[in-house]
Amino acid sequence: MPTDRSPRPTLEAVAAHAGVSRATVSRVVNGGPGVRAEVRERVRASVQALGYAPNFAARSLVTRRTGAVAVVIAEPESRVFSDPFFSRQLRGIGRELACHDTQLLLMLQERAEDHERISRYLAGGHVDGVLMFSLHGQGPPPGAQALAAGLPTVFGGRPGWPGAAEDPGLLYVDADNRGGARLATEHLLGLGRRRPAALTGPLDQTSALDRLHGFQDALTAAGLAPSRAPTAGGSFTAEGGERAMAQLLEHEPGLDAVFAGSDLMAVGALRALRAAGRRVPEDVAVVGFDDLESASWADPPLTTVRQDVEGMGRIMARLLLRQIGDVPADGGRGVTARTEEPASPVITEARLVVRASA
Amino acid sequence: MPTDRSPRPTLEAVAAHAGVSRATVSRVVNGGPGVRAEVRERVRASVQALGYAPNFAARSLVTRRTGAVAVVIAEPESRVFSDPFFSRQLRGIGRELACHDTQLLLMLQERAEDHERISRYLAGGHVDGVLMFSLHGQGPPPGAQALAAGLPTVFGGRPGWPGAAEDPGLLYVDADNRGGARLATEHLLGLGRRRPAALTGPLDQTSALDRLHGFQDALTAAGLAPSRAPTAGGSFTAEGGERAMAQLLEHEPGLDAVFAGSDLMAVGALRALRAAGRRVPEDVAVVGFDDLESASWADPPLTTVRQDVEGMGRIMARLLLRQIGDVPADGGRGVTARTEEPASPVITEARLVVRASA
Repeated sequence: MPTDRSPRPTLEAVAAHAGVSRATVSRVVNGGPGVRAEVRERVRASVQALGYAPNFAARSLVTRRTGAVAVVIAEPESRVFSDPFFSRQLRGIGRELACHDTQLLLMLQERAEDHERISRYLAGGHVDGVLMFSLHGQGPPPGAQALAAGLPTVFGGRPGWPGAAEDPGLLYVDADNRGGARLATEHLLGLGRRRPAALTGPLDQTSALDRLHGFQDALTAAGLAPSRAPTAGGSFTAEGGERAMAQLLEHEPGLDAVFAGSDLMAVGALRALRAAGRRVPEDVAVVGFDDLESASWADPPLTTVRQDVEGMGRIMARLLLRQIGDVPADGGRGVTARTEEPASPVITEARLVVRASA
Repeated sequence: MPTDRSPRPTLEAVAAHAGVSRATVSRVVNGGPGVRAEVRERVRASVQALGYAPNFAARSLVTRRTGAVAVVIAEPESRVFSDPFFSRQLRGIGRELACHDTQLLLMLQERAEDHERISRYLAGGHVDGVLMFSLHGQGPPPGAQALAAGLPTVFGGRPGWPGAAEDPGLLYVDADNRGGARLATEHLLGLGRRRPAALTGPLDQTSALDRLHGFQDALTAAGLAPSRAPTAGGSFTAEGGERAMAQLLEHEPGLDAVFAGSDLMAVGALRALRAAGRRVPEDVAVVGFDDLESASWADPPLTTVRQDVEGMGRIMARLLLRQIGDVPADGGRGVTARTEEPASPVITEARLVVRASA
């Protein structure tokens, strides 16, 4: 990147250019009241003419950093704004970045043109790093443009595209989906249930796949054949879970337990079970995954697997800041222990929260 | 702003530096599969070493533009992510910007430090303009930093800080809150109601204040004294509306109509009226404002005032792009009719949607 060593215009230069006092420039720049519109216009014109950058911290001049990090979410805005997962993760990211005086820029990538445009912006030197969320395994690696532009990048969730598992350079933060699902299923088996079924999310998402595998791990460990356990796809939504549960009941009326790969699907399953006259947990025990707020409001309150979504956001931010060079390795607590160690993916604990449904 | 006339590195230069073919560089840069991790690493290193900016469009070299616009929302993320108003407005903004190949960067400004950090980023030359949402009238003008940095700025909603009304340079887009509230109240009076009450939002927000004034306008025009009409603050929420409605019923048991300044408050009011044994619309007619999805699901379905939130987002984007210089004045349909005319605030129509509640 070419560096710019021309002196930056000062507040004094703006004041002289506009023919006003330093105090007036300062008031206009900082948004204080009591400056006539005409004078304010003149100051603004001078600010623009000289390219004066108020509050442009010394830091970025020394480090060539922009002080900003992009969060790119490859999902439609209707999804981003309706799924509490994103707002909680963004809260964690935003708070951690704020601790390091770094600005979060949110960009949604929905269509092919968006991808191209975002690539251009990322390559333009306007951010120091990228946090990338893309839940689906298809298509080109969505963070490739950032990596190619030489930008430090951390993924939210284990990347699922072909070759991702073999790429040692990919950094990501995810919950222990497989371990959490195993815990949930072990809980059901521990209650004496012997005919468990699973509701799965879209299997092109690694979180859905890993949770299914965790369910199967527990069955295998208990001497049950995973291939015999009925499963149905509920697309991670309440409606999908309700539909899938009704299907399962039709094919396997004797099932006595359900592991739902998300709380929303579990809530849908509760509805279908009620409609079919099954009592929860007496006839069918149900465990969800996520521990959304709605889990504790469900009837009966859901036993589920909690992932610390806000905490994952914080870790993503720390891992990225460490790549950028803003956080000393020993300051990124929970990220890595030794300075020499290369950064590696972080899998956070998922733990069982027992309520009334199982 | 200093310009950079050093030639930009080409794809060929990167290929030569990395010792690979153009095709391989292109594949790495565009995220295609089939490149060994080691080779990819080498290409990335060359990209970084040469400062190669893939897809860095010719446009920005010619215009010195960044191709990005910041949307700054001075609200906590819990509010932004739970209020359908923002997601609909952002959809409109994002779609319009996409039509002009411009990237939307969303920044949330919650605390004082955020304000300072965002100022710095805006002043750093990373965006071409700013769309600013701040619903509250207190504190320093939240867009002042962008204006001071010489960035074109358009506000979402009529700015309410002291002096804003007298500033001819402030551009904003808002719904006709006052006119819409007047329509709603005229509808209630047209049904023969003579004892109307109003539920208001926080009166430090211009939308809440303007809607109250519209309610009063209609009363005055009908020969009723606005000062006699009972009002109560419901903070634009369902809970607040329910509480405020219960208060109104206690003080004015004879009221026969309610204008609620938002659909959420109207939904809360319906609940309080039901609890008090009043029939809607027979005993008390209710009109809301916004036409959220929940308005048509309400029981009974809400008569309300529709504002075109997505359309307002589109107009904000067009108005800003015109300021930036990306949209010819005659291409900004609905924004202004004559090329010579300076850009001015845009007030969009609010219209009555009659359903069952009034």
